[in-house]
Amino acid sequence: MNALDLIRRKRDGGVLRPAEVQELVRSYTAGEVPDYQMSAWLMAVYFQGLDDDESFTLTQAMLESGRVLAFRDLPGPTVDKHSTGGVGDKISIPLAPIVAACGGFVPMISGRGLGHTGGTLDKLESIPGFRTQLSPEAFQEQVRGLGMAFGGQTADLAPADGKLYALRDVTGTVESIPLIVASILSKKFASGTERVVFDVKVGRGAFMKNLGRARLLARALLRTTQSLGKQGRALLTRMDQPLGRAVGNALEVEESIAILKGEGPEDVRDLTIRLAAEMLFLAGLVSDLDIGWRKAQEAIRGGKALARLQAVIERQGGDPSVCDDPARLPKAPDQHPVRAEESGAVIELRAESIGAAVVDLGGGRRTKDDPVDPGVGVLLQAKVGHTVRRGDLLAVVHARGPADAIVQRVRDAYTLSDERAAPPPDVVLDTEG
Amino acid sequence: MNALDLIRRKRDGGVLRPAEVQELVRSYTAGEVPDYQMSAWLMAVYFQGLDDDESFTLTQAMLESGRVLAFRDLPGPTVDKHSTGGVGDKISIPLAPIVAACGGFVPMISGRGLGHTGGTLDKLESIPGFRTQLSPEAFQEQVRGLGMAFGGQTADLAPADGKLYALRDVTGTVESIPLIVASILSKKFASGTERVVFDVKVGRGAFMKNLGRARLLARALLRTTQSLGKQGRALLTRMDQPLGRAVGNALEVEESIAILKGEGPEDVRDLTIRLAAEMLFLAGLVSDLDIGWRKAQEAIRGGKALARLQAVIERQGGDPSVCDDPARLPKAPDQHPVRAEESGAVIELRAESIGAAVVDLGGGRRTKDDPVDPGVGVLLQAKVGHTVRRGDLLAVVHARGPADAIVQRVRDAYTLSDERAAPPPDVVLDTEG
Repeated sequence: MNALDLIRRKRDGGVLRPAEVQELVRSYTAGEVPDYQMSAWLMAVYFQGLDDDESFTLTQAMLESGRVLAFRDLPGPTVDKHSTGGVGDKISIPLAPIVAACGGFVPMISGRGLGHTGGTLDKLESIPGFRTQLSPEAFQEQVRGLGMAFGGQTADLAPADGKLYALRDVTGTVESIPLIVASILSKKFASGTERVVFDVKVGRGAFMKNLGRARLLARALLRTTQSLGKQGRALLTRMDQPLGRAVGNALEVEESIAILKGEGPEDVRDLTIRLAAEMLFLAGLVSDLDIGWRKAQEAIRGGKALARLQAVIERQGGDPSVCDDPARLPKAPDQHPVRAEESGAVIELRAESIGAAVVDLGGGRRTKDDPVDPGVGVLLQAKVGHTVRRGDLLAVVHARGPADAIVQRVRDAYTLSDERAAPPPDVVLDTEG
Repeated sequence: MNALDLIRRKRDGGVLRPAEVQELVRSYTAGEVPDYQMSAWLMAVYFQGLDDDESFTLTQAMLESGRVLAFRDLPGPTVDKHSTGGVGDKISIPLAPIVAACGGFVPMISGRGLGHTGGTLDKLESIPGFRTQLSPEAFQEQVRGLGMAFGGQTADLAPADGKLYALRDVTGTVESIPLIVASILSKKFASGTERVVFDVKVGRGAFMKNLGRARLLARALLRTTQSLGKQGRALLTRMDQPLGRAVGNALEVEESIAILKGEGPEDVRDLTIRLAAEMLFLAGLVSDLDIGWRKAQEAIRGGKALARLQAVIERQGGDPSVCDDPARLPKAPDQHPVRAEESGAVIELRAESIGAAVVDLGGGRRTKDDPVDPGVGVLLQAKVGHTVRRGDLLAVVHARGPADAIVQRVRDAYTLSDERAAPPPDVVLDTEG
């Protein structure tokens, strides 16, 4: 294989043969093809795309670049959820226990926060003692025993993706649908999942800014999933304002626990139940989505889902009493109110501004080695569709010390209007697959 | 400056500010921006281009990345020629002495062969003793004294180009007009030339395969030349078959000497004189091209141009007697005839095949550290427009040892047709500037 030839062919709009794609991934991962050639190839892919065969081969080569887990002797099917990332998206935390309580097996592999979106692993680690680094054996054993486990990608799962993602991140080649597909699916399916529900976020706080591109991504994810012999479904969901009220690690765990108590913000509750229904249906555990919806609600009402989360927290070394007493979660020492400077209807609440404010508070990462402060965050009181009066509380900033600039920033994330408030927008925009 | 931001902006079709382009070149040359970011930026430029301001700033930043020579106290203007490279293009060797003999000052900076095209420095070094590595002082002194010197790019002239070119070469980003322009002009004008005639080659043996793209390159070269406060003109010339009869280092020097004796192939003679006329006109030494043409012819007829080449060879350490006795040039020990296997008119003689054959003989380079064999090459007997009979000599391969495969390859470079031969094609297609 000649890497230069593959760069030039892709640059000129050509199609690479499966053996060429495989060899490119292998030799890059082995360090035989240098970063500067790979980044040129990635940029050529950004402009020229990959066809379905190339996407499939790239994903498979990345998937097979390391250890591939497989669950054996499970009494039921594995099913997972993948979100493309949004602000305040804590859905995985209440979702996995619901599906597990309904008979699913959920090997939930999550990531860490980077940039304006948080990461499920960071959120979970705000629970005192909680460990997300499980050995593959412990992970599998827990999925078998409790129906679910929360884990992170280990270096031996899809190492090609780890190396490629780090390169894409610094070379402006993240925003390419076939590269996103290969990255998501190689990690997901290396972890042993057979079925995945994709939550593709759309909007100003999401990676995909408009419905058209989000739909392209959803369809590409489903096509390659099918090529790999796996099963998938996809939701397209709105990410213009943050999901729920809590943005910040411990605050989001608290909100997740509330969901499992039948409380918490309606948008989080609805999306969690909707995704649970999709997962149960995809796993073949229910014959239609309505039945899935009802089963998920029952798992919440009966307390089975919360009990399952508690058992998982305990098994993963965390303090399960946070479920009964969320005050045991870390809390930032200072709460700064953000008040409306005028009256009006909230017509916009910019998710990316709130996400960036939480990063500035220390609750997220600018670079991947930054430490994360579990207690800080923003608790939103007013969201799109609400009407506020001058002086009303818009949000509370949970900080360590003064945070005047951040209070201002959160206030600036809101747009108020004289017009009458429209009803809160639906979170789920559409389904694919 | 944030390199990632510049990559993304160029990728998305944006325009970089002058200070950003300057800082990108500076920090890349200083090793602060890694190769993998630069190659991604270069690929983004390949797809999105650079506007005239960006091209100018890029060229200027590369030009000023190292030492910038300037000729002072010369009694006349400096003028140089740059060819975009072709097979059998030895024009610089007879051209510079003609222009110098007519009163021009020619600081001729040339390159080495790479791939299927040869390099003037390699050709000159086939003259026993000839040195092309002159100090800037010796180079300037010789231009002052003899009106010309043959030199190579030293590492301190436009070092940013050296580093960028090496990266482009392995990342599929060579074929971008604004990057080609910046590379050519930064080197050219760092060497102290004020005026340049560009010989932009067009055709299957050239970098630019069609007239449209060649014209775009010619115009881009002239626009940026003007922005830099320099003067240029451009010829678009055909490079489908090799130029002249000789391809190979010593063989091309011999053909160059023949030109200065009023002999040699008509296409080389015509193009040499045409380019000399352009240079004399651009330098203000003649008031129109016709006068330039006649002056150049007179310099050949009167023997002044050959005498000038002889003086230059002697000054640069070479054996000047090669001009009188070309047999003193190195010669490969074995000559293999290439004979026509059928009768017909030569309708095509693929320059790139002949160039590749000479590389295979050891007369060129695959990688830039390969040694070059000065004596080997191909001497073409039949060219496009000639008619041959079965058994006639098409060419002679000058080799070291057996060369059956290469003989076959040279034969395969010809296409013969039953139809009547068309007249030999004009070399000069058009002028710009």
